[in-house]
Amino acid sequence: MTGADQGPPTPLSGEEEAFLRAFGRALLIVPRALDADLLREQHMSLNEYTALMLLSESPGLRLRMSDLAAACSLSISGMTRIVSRLQAQGLVRREQCPGDRRGWYAALTDSGLARLGAAWPTHVASVRRHMMDHLAEVDLPTVTAALRRFASDALNSSDVAPVDAPRVPYDP
Amino acid sequence: MTGADQGPPTPLSGEEEAFLRAFGRALLIVPRALDADLLREQHMSLNEYTALMLLSESPGLRLRMSDLAAACSLSISGMTRIVSRLQAQGLVRREQCPGDRRGWYAALTDSGLARLGAAWPTHVASVRRHMMDHLAEVDLPTVTAALRRFASDALNSSDVAPVDAPRVPYDP
Repeated sequence: MTGADQGPPTPLSGEEEAFLRAFGRALLIVPRALDADLLREQHMSLNEYTALMLLSESPGLRLRMSDLAAACSLSISGMTRIVSRLQAQGLVRREQCPGDRRGWYAALTDSGLARLGAAWPTHVASVRRHMMDHLAEVDLPTVTAALRRFASDALNSSDVAPVDAPRVPYDP
Repeated sequence: MTGADQGPPTPLSGEEEAFLRAFGRALLIVPRALDADLLREQHMSLNEYTALMLLSESPGLRLRMSDLAAACSLSISGMTRIVSRLQAQGLVRREQCPGDRRGWYAALTDSGLARLGAAWPTHVASVRRHMMDHLAEVDLPTVTAALRRFASDALNSSDVAPVDAPRVPYDP
């Protein structure tokens, strides 16, 4: 599984290296730009927007907290903090899962759905400005398929932890 | 600048929506996969690897702390934590900038360069496995150019803060 087990790997080509660096920059900067636009115009973070959107697309406008966290690639504690803020604004309510005393749903309220609709124009304009307006020459379905393979491969690695879970400790 | 100022934006097409979601998943998952591989096999985080790599490519193997932080899209305090861990292992040393009592360089040591060389096969094999092996049909230079436009556009937004700087406060 490691390069060391199989001899040194082939170095990246110039084109591969350039792609890696551009991808690395974009993945740091684009979410911050989308987040900044939502915070400035809607007083809502990108994580909050994403949680509301995922609930709006789910049957019965509700998701188990664990499923909502997984869909956002957040830990359950990270998602609990986001849902608590949304709940305090009346945008989401928590409901106990029937027949499972330890399970909780997050459910979108009417206010939450209206709030999502109000924030949507900001977010779509932001996505267009920061991303879609720059994709004219790109074969979108091919790139989308490749990006999906990135993610599915990485999720098969058993040691990839949720984003804000504690990482493997090590001694510096 | 906002969608609200100009009437509602055009909704995303199905292809755009699919790209947005695949990009969002990949940008959360790929860095964690690269980080997990480096931690498991090299006891080094992706941020530490990136800092060593950037120093190795700089004239005199040194960078101002502020430039190193900017190149990693981290705050100076975030980069200071990373450099302190690298310094404790003898991989980096701090040097005062001549003629600027408040400025500091991070400089790569011989041990740091050797450590980077030892970690390189793990990282390249990891980048191949999680990314490059899935890009066969993709027109890499075109996608790279588009990703560069993403980033340069977002950096022109004046309110995009470094990754771990305090964000705009708001009352939930």
